[in-house]
Amino acid sequence: MKTIENSKVIYKFKPELEPVEKVQRGEIFKVLTNDCFYGQITSEDQLLDNIDYSKINPATGPIYIEGAEPGDILKISIIKIKPASTGVAITVPNEGALGKRATKSLTMILNIEDGYCDFNGIKLPIKPMIGVIGVATKKDEEQDTATPWKHGGNMDTTDICQGSTLYLPVNQQGALLALGDCHAIMGDGEICFTGCEIAAEVTLKTEVIKNKSIEWPLVETSDYTMVVASGETIDEAIESATEQAVDHMMKGLNITWEEAYILASLTLDIKISQIVDPKKTVRGAIPKYLLSTEQLINSI
Amino acid sequence: MKTIENSKVIYKFKPELEPVEKVQRGEIFKVLTNDCFYGQITSEDQLLDNIDYSKINPATGPIYIEGAEPGDILKISIIKIKPASTGVAITVPNEGALGKRATKSLTMILNIEDGYCDFNGIKLPIKPMIGVIGVATKKDEEQDTATPWKHGGNMDTTDICQGSTLYLPVNQQGALLALGDCHAIMGDGEICFTGCEIAAEVTLKTEVIKNKSIEWPLVETSDYTMVVASGETIDEAIESATEQAVDHMMKGLNITWEEAYILASLTLDIKISQIVDPKKTVRGAIPKYLLSTEQLINSI
Repeated sequence: MKTIENSKVIYKFKPELEPVEKVQRGEIFKVLTNDCFYGQITSEDQLLDNIDYSKINPATGPIYIEGAEPGDILKISIIKIKPASTGVAITVPNEGALGKRATKSLTMILNIEDGYCDFNGIKLPIKPMIGVIGVATKKDEEQDTATPWKHGGNMDTTDICQGSTLYLPVNQQGALLALGDCHAIMGDGEICFTGCEIAAEVTLKTEVIKNKSIEWPLVETSDYTMVVASGETIDEAIESATEQAVDHMMKGLNITWEEAYILASLTLDIKISQIVDPKKTVRGAIPKYLLSTEQLINSI
Repeated sequence: MKTIENSKVIYKFKPELEPVEKVQRGEIFKVLTNDCFYGQITSEDQLLDNIDYSKINPATGPIYIEGAEPGDILKISIIKIKPASTGVAITVPNEGALGKRATKSLTMILNIEDGYCDFNGIKLPIKPMIGVIGVATKKDEEQDTATPWKHGGNMDTTDICQGSTLYLPVNQQGALLALGDCHAIMGDGEICFTGCEIAAEVTLKTEVIKNKSIEWPLVETSDYTMVVASGETIDEAIESATEQAVDHMMKGLNITWEEAYILASLTLDIKISQIVDPKKTVRGAIPKYLLSTEQLINSI
């Protein structure tokens, strides 16, 4: 199985990126990812003020997917996320949802074993997820890896996890996929600004859906197809996620826009992904009992 | 079993309210509620511009709970919500998350049968919930029934449903509980501004937890204890919910504030309740595997 090493990283999603590996459609491959600090935090005595900030949020790649062309959708099955044996979680003054109350720094190194993260003796069941995953951007657009947007990026979405399938718009030949910033466990919101930050070994399968385009990423779980949208504010992200979700419901179910808007009010769950990155991210979760992901994509 | 008729309604939660019924601690009783339009919408030809707006969001009650005094917590077990056989859902121009795109009105009368809501042939599994439920407010405070706040009110929270337990602060002698605005089904967000609006028959049991006070309502589900907080903006609601949740985790688990802040970042799920009422509502969901609701309340 091809393995992409975690020394091959990018810090920006751009239109032009030099691929470090090529994979075929349907090929299963492994990506080794760094934690969001590029492994710079190794002790609980370390604070964030003595690390190299140019090395935050490295994404391993880019990976060229044969046959992916602009105007297609890249379908990424997340087969496995194997976490490292330790993770890092940090609070620093003025950061996160309660920044005003956060006055002291605290760095925690957390052991991960047998499916649990040990938080000072409290066992937390892990649910490993990918924080940063994205593709090359459109012409004249550039996003650092800390920012979530239409190409993916730092979506910090708990449902981008083992067993889920992510759909990203292809903007450039070969898509040019890169990923990193995995978390062993994170709550919806990521309220203090870190999850349990880990290096990981991620096993993926990529396929290409030809000639179908989406504006925002989609993530498919066992029960939902979710539109993952970001914005300067949570309200802006909610509006974008809702707009695309209502359009999918209208087209997929062949109903009027007003019917789809009401149906979304009855069935669409707006879920918070994160509120601490340069842009905020939410997901609009469309139940699969209404419309399967395949039906939804076919109707685009 | 005592039954409170749905002709006995209030439109404001105030410090002083005339009770229409008294119940004992631990007594099981029934409350008949109106839909949020007080039954004024009976045909799909009706639009919202020809109804009496002074009769929006009637709450049945107030009910005096013996033994409830200011500084206590009122514990309300939601034993059953039996929906009416039809519901109403409406979109009108300029309303909801996509108000800018909503240009046409649509009124739908939806049949409810055998656990499903029939949406033009699409069967939606119902999950009946209480939209408005609250108690008399503090001195000098008055809230109309359309508004969610610390006393409860129009929280429009999908988890305030059959099988859940709601905890409200007691501000006045007897608590003075009132409720209405049930929905057969609603998505988190209530994005077009209505759920499937129904009259209902609600069976409750109320108990009193003496000398424990909470700032915001709590709702207990099978997996979570959730802080239900509201604010002028979603951000403000998130900050309030997070602040109370982190405090509960700190006290309940006997850890420092910084540890609790990090632990919340790893485990607390911020969930959207509604984004369309005069104030917005979210819930901060604390997993019960960390801390049971009983432990949480005991630690206050």
